[in-house]
Amino acid sequence: MPYSDLDPVFAHIDRNADSHVARLMEYVRHPSISAQDVGIREVAGLLMGMLERLGFEAELLATRGHPMVLGRGPAVPDAPTVLLYGHYDVQPPEPLEAWTTPPFEPTIRDGRIFARGVGDNKGQHLAQLLAIEAHLAVHGRLPCNVIVLLEGEEEIGSPHLAEAVAAHADKLAHADLVVTADGTLHPSGRGTILYGVRGVTHFDIRVRTAARDTHSGNFGGVVPNAMWALVHLLGTMRAPDGRLTVAGLCDPVVAPGAVEAAAAAALPIDLPALMTELGLSALDAPRDRPFWDRLMFHPTLTINGIAGGYSGPGSKTVLPAEAVAKCDIRLVEAMTPDQALAAVRAHVAAQAPALGATVEVVGSGGMLPSRTPMDSPFAAVLRRALTLARGESPLEYPCMGGSLPDYVFTKTLGLPAFVTPYGNADEANHAPDENLSLSCFHAGIRSGAALLSGLGELTGACVCPVNHTKLHG
Amino acid sequence: MPYSDLDPVFAHIDRNADSHVARLMEYVRHPSISAQDVGIREVAGLLMGMLERLGFEAELLATRGHPMVLGRGPAVPDAPTVLLYGHYDVQPPEPLEAWTTPPFEPTIRDGRIFARGVGDNKGQHLAQLLAIEAHLAVHGRLPCNVIVLLEGEEEIGSPHLAEAVAAHADKLAHADLVVTADGTLHPSGRGTILYGVRGVTHFDIRVRTAARDTHSGNFGGVVPNAMWALVHLLGTMRAPDGRLTVAGLCDPVVAPGAVEAAAAAALPIDLPALMTELGLSALDAPRDRPFWDRLMFHPTLTINGIAGGYSGPGSKTVLPAEAVAKCDIRLVEAMTPDQALAAVRAHVAAQAPALGATVEVVGSGGMLPSRTPMDSPFAAVLRRALTLARGESPLEYPCMGGSLPDYVFTKTLGLPAFVTPYGNADEANHAPDENLSLSCFHAGIRSGAALLSGLGELTGACVCPVNHTKLHG
Ligand SMILES: [Zn+2]
Ligand SMILES: [Zn+2]
Repeated sequence: MPYSDLDPVFAHIDRNADSHVARLMEYVRHPSISAQDVGIREVAGLLMGMLERLGFEAELLATRGHPMVLGRGPAVPDAPTVLLYGHYDVQPPEPLEAWTTPPFEPTIRDGRIFARGVGDNKGQHLAQLLAIEAHLAVHGRLPCNVIVLLEGEEEIGSPHLAEAVAAHADKLAHADLVVTADGTLHPSGRGTILYGVRGVTHFDIRVRTAARDTHSGNFGGVVPNAMWALVHLLGTMRAPDGRLTVAGLCDPVVAPGAVEAAAAAALPIDLPALMTELGLSALDAPRDRPFWDRLMFHPTLTINGIAGGYSGPGSKTVLPAEAVAKCDIRLVEAMTPDQALAAVRAHVAAQAPALGATVEVVGSGGMLPSRTPMDSPFAAVLRRALTLARGESPLEYPCMGGSLPDYVFTKTLGLPAFVTPYGNADEANHAPDENLSLSCFHAGIRSGAALLSGLGELTGACVCPVNHTKLHG
Repeated sequence: MPYSDLDPVFAHIDRNADSHVARLMEYVRHPSISAQDVGIREVAGLLMGMLERLGFEAELLATRGHPMVLGRGPAVPDAPTVLLYGHYDVQPPEPLEAWTTPPFEPTIRDGRIFARGVGDNKGQHLAQLLAIEAHLAVHGRLPCNVIVLLEGEEEIGSPHLAEAVAAHADKLAHADLVVTADGTLHPSGRGTILYGVRGVTHFDIRVRTAARDTHSGNFGGVVPNAMWALVHLLGTMRAPDGRLTVAGLCDPVVAPGAVEAAAAAALPIDLPALMTELGLSALDAPRDRPFWDRLMFHPTLTINGIAGGYSGPGSKTVLPAEAVAKCDIRLVEAMTPDQALAAVRAHVAAQAPALGATVEVVGSGGMLPSRTPMDSPFAAVLRRALTLARGESPLEYPCMGGSLPDYVFTKTLGLPAFVTPYGNADEANHAPDENLSLSCFHAGIRSGAALLSGLGELTGACVCPVNHTKLHG
């Protein structure tokens, strides 16, 4: 009988709900603010202790920044290995005066715990640890192999995650899948599975037409205006109909598979409500593109802002010698930051001579996109586990519009990677009065427990065409 | 014999050179900083006294800001009337520490007087007054009628000049011409006559696509980017080949007359030196336009800067909801600020629906262009007067690229208006160590004296087809 070990674990979790809440409140009492280097070592130490009490081998992995906490559960022969990723650092709590109760004095109001980091991400990875604890308490063993990886720099952009994961690949790469509990559920409260993210590359396009700014009267008509050169250059990069017209930029794009396309089309969206909330009279061009396809399957070229000349209050008769467009490109599978930047550079180099300007493209980092196939056998496990834990099937997002370093798992380690958020949609992460609802926390622990059971079901029975040797090898 | 009265006046001016320098040094000792409201009333009072000592009727004309000083010379029947315009206010002297000697303690070094306002404009209008004084000292009378008008707000943009001139038109409009001694000679030291200026209109184009900025990952592809809408809109307003493509904008443009076109073509320009100094690899499009035509006979549409989103250091993944292009248009005869702004508004209104954006054009003032025909009979007088005073014929500029409120004289009062600068090219006006060379000051007084003599020559002999009744009526 599938998931035969799960009911008593659910019962244990339900019985211990109050004690679990108390454990979370104790945990979030400890600040671990990566941006301010406050409490990082202390909280990493707390986690080491928690892992050791679970019988895990615990290890602090040094990085060039804050350390990562690695835990390895007892070996479960023939069972798959799940890598549970999360982050123990939190956002700075400022502005403090905007909090109803102090950020590091957790308080329960209206069925929620209010504290910095309670949703993002302490409550979510603690739910995973409590799910492990529940399995061990009830059965004295885990259904599958578990690796826990908690980083301390997610809130400052995970600057060392990629190199640390690559450096410690020997300790991680024998995992069969990666599951991250982070982010929020659908506003309806329904569970979600996220299979991919768009990548991103950031760059400046710097146009220079003269050695210095001049006066628009004394030199207007003589000195080329860098703003006009930039406007005309940008005009060659994206058409008013929404097409990106940078040669080669979109060449690597892999269209979504039939499963992903169908999943995107099936997702709910209240477009009138969204447009009202954002004050939109129209969606971005092209107008006829399905809503979710826009965020999931198409790259964007965003102008974040334009510097140069004078753009403050009043008027100033300046003829700008320099104009800088700050841009980002959201990347879809199989674009890469390097490929996209190279296409932009080649395009700009081809246009520059006609502009009467020198043009430079200065890159400032990026992230690869990530996409895990929705027909992965592990997807079926997650789908069923979340349904059992929450009483309702999850919404499934082939991709999200933003960028997270999931490529570290899918591309560096070559593993399928899934995100299953446990937070309430109004968790106010990064903001004052961050909170996690008690019911979401509880459902999160149940979800984690069901995931472990589901992965245990895979033991010995091959359901995995893509990863056969790893899974059973 | 033409200019028969001039030689003894020149001799008087040459004899009194030292005393004239002493008078100028005494005058610039008194600050009159319009922007800081320092010393304005005191210096206006000094000027009233000087005019009265010349036997002029002196009057303080109130404005909504600092007052103007008006002086009227003794009546000279049948002779034309010249309005000598200048300004008695000066720029703030800051930064004080950058001055070699204090700005209001005039000092002679290397044949120059260093002091704030010595060139811009006190030394130049004092030269006009000393020229009047010389005529009176030698001949006991003036060769023509003279009105002196000195404003106290030129350095803050002459905000009340237009309304004050219109309000006091009865005291000014019977003049036959306006002559302004302001600005600098050609770097070679050769005298110049300036016949016109471009006008200007300032405005913002404000594009809005959403109620608030969003995240380029979470909403990129969904929410229209105001920066892209603005880039595409601006792209419809000026072609890369330099043509202004705003319908109707250039319709009123009056091509230069044959005299003006020939004068512009004859003016010197060291283009390689200019391009080196400004770091230009090319002049602005269109490439084949003659140099001076660019500044004199063609309007420009300048983007001064673009606000919105984020354009500071580093990167920020913002998808801008608003983008504002700050612009100015330099106007040539017979464009007007209202006409230009109306053309921009109509163009933008026609483009806005395709942009998925609301677009607003917010004007913030402007000035009409001004053009005095180079074949005015007064032009011949100025040409000859400057040649006699300086020993070399002047360079003649049909127009300058920048904007000054000359339209107040040419359009409000309907008078021909000329600018004949007396300052050395390196006078450093508006900057520390502002200075006026002793020889330029001296030549300025001689120029003023010759102008008066030349205008006296017009008495009784009609040489003026355009202004006959005024001149002799
Ligand atoms: Zn966060
Ligand atoms: Zn000035």
